[in-house]
Amino acid sequence: MIVVGAGLAGLSAARSLVADGKSVVVLEARDRVAGRNHGGFLSNGVPVELGGQWVGATQDVVLDLIDELGLETFPTYDDGEAITYVDGQRLRYSDETFGLPVEVAVEVGRIWEQIEILASTVDLVQPWASPDAETLDRQTLDGWLTGISDDSIAIRMFRTLVPAIFSAETPELSLLHFLFYVKSGTSLEILAATTGGAQEHRVVGGTHLISERMAAELGERVRLNTVVRDIAQDDDGVVVTFEGGQVSGSHVVVAVPTTLASRFRYSPPLPSARDALTQQMPAGSVIKYHVAYNTPFWREDGLSGFVLGLDSAFGVVLDNSPNDASCGVLVGFIEGAHARTAAEQTADERRAAVIAQLVEYFGPQASEPIEVIEQDWMAEEFTRGCYGGRLGAGVWTQYGRALAAPVGRIHWAGAETSDVWNGYMDGAIRSGRRAAAEIRDSGRADA
Amino acid sequence: MIVVGAGLAGLSAARSLVADGKSVVVLEARDRVAGRNHGGFLSNGVPVELGGQWVGATQDVVLDLIDELGLETFPTYDDGEAITYVDGQRLRYSDETFGLPVEVAVEVGRIWEQIEILASTVDLVQPWASPDAETLDRQTLDGWLTGISDDSIAIRMFRTLVPAIFSAETPELSLLHFLFYVKSGTSLEILAATTGGAQEHRVVGGTHLISERMAAELGERVRLNTVVRDIAQDDDGVVVTFEGGQVSGSHVVVAVPTTLASRFRYSPPLPSARDALTQQMPAGSVIKYHVAYNTPFWREDGLSGFVLGLDSAFGVVLDNSPNDASCGVLVGFIEGAHARTAAEQTADERRAAVIAQLVEYFGPQASEPIEVIEQDWMAEEFTRGCYGGRLGAGVWTQYGRALAAPVGRIHWAGAETSDVWNGYMDGAIRSGRRAAAEIRDSGRADA
Repeated sequence: MIVVGAGLAGLSAARSLVADGKSVVVLEARDRVAGRNHGGFLSNGVPVELGGQWVGATQDVVLDLIDELGLETFPTYDDGEAITYVDGQRLRYSDETFGLPVEVAVEVGRIWEQIEILASTVDLVQPWASPDAETLDRQTLDGWLTGISDDSIAIRMFRTLVPAIFSAETPELSLLHFLFYVKSGTSLEILAATTGGAQEHRVVGGTHLISERMAAELGERVRLNTVVRDIAQDDDGVVVTFEGGQVSGSHVVVAVPTTLASRFRYSPPLPSARDALTQQMPAGSVIKYHVAYNTPFWREDGLSGFVLGLDSAFGVVLDNSPNDASCGVLVGFIEGAHARTAAEQTADERRAAVIAQLVEYFGPQASEPIEVIEQDWMAEEFTRGCYGGRLGAGVWTQYGRALAAPVGRIHWAGAETSDVWNGYMDGAIRSGRRAAAEIRDSGRADA
Repeated sequence: MIVVGAGLAGLSAARSLVADGKSVVVLEARDRVAGRNHGGFLSNGVPVELGGQWVGATQDVVLDLIDELGLETFPTYDDGEAITYVDGQRLRYSDETFGLPVEVAVEVGRIWEQIEILASTVDLVQPWASPDAETLDRQTLDGWLTGISDDSIAIRMFRTLVPAIFSAETPELSLLHFLFYVKSGTSLEILAATTGGAQEHRVVGGTHLISERMAAELGERVRLNTVVRDIAQDDDGVVVTFEGGQVSGSHVVVAVPTTLASRFRYSPPLPSARDALTQQMPAGSVIKYHVAYNTPFWREDGLSGFVLGLDSAFGVVLDNSPNDASCGVLVGFIEGAHARTAAEQTADERRAAVIAQLVEYFGPQASEPIEVIEQDWMAEEFTRGCYGGRLGAGVWTQYGRALAAPVGRIHWAGAETSDVWNGYMDGAIRSGRRAAAEIRDSGRADA
């Protein structure tokens, strides 16, 4: 068995296949495992996650795996007041109003509830077969939002929240895809929340350890610096060619982002529906920052560190300090359209803008960080965007069937292919296990 | 100088570079030139175009080139009445009403005029800088249509006309992209029309002859069966690696569809904006049919052969008989969503459905063709969809700048990259010449 990609999905597939007694090789283009869970460290040794970092409520698969691998979690810091920054005003709150004027908060709540109700109708396994799927998929999320509300601040609220979840803008998502994603992550409430939600816990040492522990188990089965180029299959098996060699097996699990899966050359060529899907599941746009300080000074001001900036490029910030608060770390994101604009600037320009924004949010103490770490996921050749792939208007109903359906001996894994917790670490692990189960169930001979 | 792709764009670039005194090599993956202008023949020797086939009003560049290469054109047959097929009714017409009830025709005319007025405001060179570009780009064409009209038949009319032009559905296009494309092709009137429009003339012998004549001039510079995989550039020049070898030069023109341009491996990796654009400029979906009869029998019935079917998978048909009418040929298309569904059927099932549809349009004589030729452009590994690439909501304003902007020594050509007649043969030729001019103007040393 061959696995392409040593992120959570590929490693989970390999681990399942090994448990089934199969011989496995994992081919990874980079000089490291963990894909979008790359681990970083401040100069003082404190680990900071350069990619996916939170786990939380209802993500039982990743939580169980963390436990199984002997890793531990700790709660994301979430005490004190949060901030909504809108029209130059800093609104502090600790309730469910986002600090907005009551009539706006009520409108946000009304839209939110509509989303939860509509999302509950989606068929996670076959979104294209959901009630009214065609109608939901013809619309963009933005078209739907502006159709049901005239409140400009409420709309801006969702136009900020949505990029915080997708690294993409509301016109870039079909309503059906948005609703699918919400239900896939249990609810919008769970997706958006820290305590009790998807941002509830962090992994001690960093999330990259999940991949590294799995890779350690797999040992020499994992081959780094192995850039796959061709995937050929016939009645006898699969041959995967990489720069410098090739391997053969009975099946291959392709565990790379869907948009990158078309960059291999397939023989025979992929069915057109599968190819077309890869042409239109672009990755999100995000640049992630860790800004470190001697102390988490905002806590003394009664702030949790959580900010939503409705008119800011650096619009989503959270406290990412180590559990012992030995230093203070703010983590934040430039997302969606802002990320595309920021990518045209120099790193120095971006850094200056990020710090200036933090000063607006947290005051002059924010102006003197001890360290800033930037991670631009769009520029990474073997990722090309985070957090994951999205589907615009019309794609789910026309091409959704091709997202995870095996093509002969080729099986597709990756967070984008999961029905539950699509786009998240939990979904990535599920997808790898699902691909392994497909192979197990296919009953074909081992490699 | 290296050119990747021997369609009209690549060959036009090569021809211009040769005229500038440059040494040139053209690398073509297929065993033939002409890309999306592949030529076919009926068993009786009559040429039929498997891809792009019409030239017409305002397409001066392709018309001049045809003349320069010693080729000739002849008028597309357009006498007699056309048919609109809606709700099982066959509406014959020879005016501008499409045979629709007068109130529907008036509504279609009103929407049509709105489109022409809005399209006239688009900046063809910098669509993202057009007035209200952000607003136009946030919307899908479908959202705009359903917002300005309640007439379900008028809307269905545009939901049929648009796939006839784009091989894609109205929700899949941003309003800005649609308007850009309309203005790029002069006007919707010109785009849609046969006589006086984009479907006015055909090339004697088939459009593939344009590419073949250029390739003949270029001689051994054109290398077929050469599958490019890697494009590397540094201060000294470019190295293009294909399966079996490599060539070096000072510049490279990449003249393949934008969605396929990301399937090469670039060193250094492409800037993220360019890469992201290739992730979201999918090709259209179309299966093209030629259905041949002993005679163009519909002409005796006073029909031009032109059909728009508002509720049919095989919804666009024209007369494609040879100029001497030595036999009758109907050409038609399964487009957009219909093409995606049809691709899941067997060729026999599709063929039966196509003929049954022609019987509904033209009567029982249509049931006995002498030959049927099918061309599925989605299944072609080195095209992966026709007619061209499209941009959904939000893409022009965020990534449009990356569509044709050179990346160091890499220049982008292809019909998708042209400001004038984007997506058409005329635009393809313009794009190749523009890429050659970029190299000329760059003043860099020849290869």
